[in-house]
Amino acid sequence: MYNQGTIIAKATGAGSSAICLFRLSGNDSIKMVSKYFQAKSKKKLTEQKSHTVHLGTLHHNGATLDEVLVSVFKAPHSYTGENIVEISCHGSNFIQEAILRLFISKGAQQAKPGEFTLRAFLNKKMDLSQAEAVADLIASESRAAHEIAINQMRGGYTDEISQLRQKLLDFASLITLELDFAEEDVAFADRIALKDLLWSLQSKIKSLLDSFQYGSVIKKGVPVAIVGKPNAGKSSLLNALLKENRAIVSAIPGTTRDTIEDTMTLSGIEFRFIDTAGLRETDDQIEAIGVAKAKEKVDLARVMIYLFDAHDTSLSEITSAIKEFKREDLIVLLVENKIDLIQEAGESSLTKALKEQSYHIPTHAFCSISTFDPDTIEQLKKTLYNQIKKIAVQGDVVVSNARHYEALQNALGAIIEIGEGLESELTGDLLSVHINEAIHFLGEISGEIGNDELLGNIFSKFCIGK
Amino acid sequence: MYNQGTIIAKATGAGSSAICLFRLSGNDSIKMVSKYFQAKSKKKLTEQKSHTVHLGTLHHNGATLDEVLVSVFKAPHSYTGENIVEISCHGSNFIQEAILRLFISKGAQQAKPGEFTLRAFLNKKMDLSQAEAVADLIASESRAAHEIAINQMRGGYTDEISQLRQKLLDFASLITLELDFAEEDVAFADRIALKDLLWSLQSKIKSLLDSFQYGSVIKKGVPVAIVGKPNAGKSSLLNALLKENRAIVSAIPGTTRDTIEDTMTLSGIEFRFIDTAGLRETDDQIEAIGVAKAKEKVDLARVMIYLFDAHDTSLSEITSAIKEFKREDLIVLLVENKIDLIQEAGESSLTKALKEQSYHIPTHAFCSISTFDPDTIEQLKKTLYNQIKKIAVQGDVVVSNARHYEALQNALGAIIEIGEGLESELTGDLLSVHINEAIHFLGEISGEIGNDELLGNIFSKFCIGK
Repeated sequence: MYNQGTIIAKATGAGSSAICLFRLSGNDSIKMVSKYFQAKSKKKLTEQKSHTVHLGTLHHNGATLDEVLVSVFKAPHSYTGENIVEISCHGSNFIQEAILRLFISKGAQQAKPGEFTLRAFLNKKMDLSQAEAVADLIASESRAAHEIAINQMRGGYTDEISQLRQKLLDFASLITLELDFAEEDVAFADRIALKDLLWSLQSKIKSLLDSFQYGSVIKKGVPVAIVGKPNAGKSSLLNALLKENRAIVSAIPGTTRDTIEDTMTLSGIEFRFIDTAGLRETDDQIEAIGVAKAKEKVDLARVMIYLFDAHDTSLSEITSAIKEFKREDLIVLLVENKIDLIQEAGESSLTKALKEQSYHIPTHAFCSISTFDPDTIEQLKKTLYNQIKKIAVQGDVVVSNARHYEALQNALGAIIEIGEGLESELTGDLLSVHINEAIHFLGEISGEIGNDELLGNIFSKFCIGK
Repeated sequence: MYNQGTIIAKATGAGSSAICLFRLSGNDSIKMVSKYFQAKSKKKLTEQKSHTVHLGTLHHNGATLDEVLVSVFKAPHSYTGENIVEISCHGSNFIQEAILRLFISKGAQQAKPGEFTLRAFLNKKMDLSQAEAVADLIASESRAAHEIAINQMRGGYTDEISQLRQKLLDFASLITLELDFAEEDVAFADRIALKDLLWSLQSKIKSLLDSFQYGSVIKKGVPVAIVGKPNAGKSSLLNALLKENRAIVSAIPGTTRDTIEDTMTLSGIEFRFIDTAGLRETDDQIEAIGVAKAKEKVDLARVMIYLFDAHDTSLSEITSAIKEFKREDLIVLLVENKIDLIQEAGESSLTKALKEQSYHIPTHAFCSISTFDPDTIEQLKKTLYNQIKKIAVQGDVVVSNARHYEALQNALGAIIEIGEGLESELTGDLLSVHINEAIHFLGEISGEIGNDELLGNIFSKFCIGK
């Protein structure tokens, strides 16, 4: 999988720009660039120290390609652990193509997606979970997603996994002790310690698994479906929610107005609001279509806001709509709109009852708003944010990667097997099979256990140049 | 105009990418970044040597923003002549925004378009024509445009202008001599030298002015209109021309198929082919519309290819069409198509006559092609290329900038006035007015003479970050 040749890629964004950065990595990279680079200082690039920058020109066949800055990083003190050259050139399309063409014609290979990071992993500059965090970091669009990724990239996850592994090793040594003396009937106290250890191992993995629910919504943004009858004020609510965040409204390019209305970031967490058609009352058949359409969208959501006008909605309508959409992992916010009108007309009996919670409607929170009153909208935002924060687990480490989630689940399975084996007094040999399994699955996360297919699959999702 | 504060801009392309580069310039830039940067080596950024790169983290309010590479360039050894810091971060949109927001909140100003280069000019790191060449270089899409820009950026133009200025200074000292001795009637030989010098000055400026015709088509690409009756084979010709250059066919984004068909690069020169509707014969009124439409497009072109099928076209049709479109600076290629059919049917009398040039049709070249015969298409490409090369002037320096063209024209005007003043025996005082004028206009090119409005106008056309 690891070819030792020099790779090259453009690492910066598309199109023409002030500056464009090329990266070359490989043991020959400095030598290769030095042939076509003339430093203003006349010094040879190959004789320069690591981590230095040099102004000069790139030339080929007597023609000057560009005036460039060249940075030199020497193995092993570089991102990949190999010699790296970074060329910072003027960002014209012509120059970009000419530089790429020059070095490819001289034997460099165009880097595959993630190949720089793959090399860093293979050269043990980072473990696999750190490498994966690099891709997550580049894709992160909100503070929360960014925090999870940067913590993982800086080794927070690695620490957690290595603590788990240490516990497994402790367990392995304890069990050896326990089994060695089992027939002599001396080790009863050890057996309790053994079970405690197994328990703490399980509970740690379970809490990591729990964090996945939070991690995966944070990574992709929290989808919120706004549901309600026509004229409940869904569009006004959306406008009121987004008003002060207009600037980042079009953060997701290519979203069609039909499916995702808009995104906004609340205290660093990205929310994606999904519009639904108003639920119609006029005719049973039409209503069914409306509900089916809305249901499709609620199925994609993590949060449902059921919006209603208390003077135009019956309790049974609310109850049946919420029951229709209810799902175990769906957070339901019941939101009463148009309370400015209520202040004139007086509070309805429905509102009173809902406030007193005298009806049992399965929701997570109840809010009263007016889209004309910014304070009530702020209150709704806080409620929304707090509901998501509730599913956030304690601790720095959040699992946001489906592959890690699966590996943790498999490790947990193996640990449960150890517990059961212990109960049924399996021999040490048989128990060690499960212990090794658990160690194996944790190793998949850090990449100590892996194969080419797995690596290829992971790194193919990277962008080129990283 | 020049504010001494620290400016910041993202210098690399749009969107999320592996790497994104920020540049900060200003005397406080290193100090400013050092407050939020922690080097892995623990060393202070402010104590680092110029032209060194440092791995570390950017942090703010206890949170890590990113792992970054920071390069330090110390005044005056930097692009702008001020202290410069370049931050190479992960290219997520979130990180990009966070870094920009951090430094702007700490007092950096978002750089205006071209502000880095403007500072370089104001700090005398380059003259104005070199600064303008930086923008041209980034915009260049073909080898020829790139060559003109890089030659200008590297000072080729500056040399030429300073030679002209030297000649003007020589002239000024000669004329002082001549006029001092004029009444003593000793200086007849000097007067000849004086006229020679004036003549060589005029001829040099004229040749620079001539090069503008070439420079401006190269900068924008050479527009070629293909004109002819329906079924003359215009589309086939276009396909045949473009076939081997398909890869760069969509080099100009946003071009609609209706106006510009496609671009291709021939030996480093970019050609833009403009489609025209076939000229119709069926009805006078419709024909008039067809001709008018085609004429609009030919008006935009530098080259017209008049394509015809010799077995379907009369000499008078060709003559009247070409006369219709003729313009002084339009290069006209008369191209006979379908010579494969002619080989079967025998050469037409029209073709014979055209080959023998026994009809006077005002064209620049005549070609015979078959779109099925790649050799004939190659021949047409060569003809096209050679016609453009013909307008290329000798010498490295090509004027491609309309502002420079105007300044040179004004300088030429002043020099002609000097010549006339000399003829009419103006006094030295009055002549020196014109000499100073000429020096002034040349100074506008290099930026020795300039004002804020001129500078603002020039640099506003730059991209941000350069």
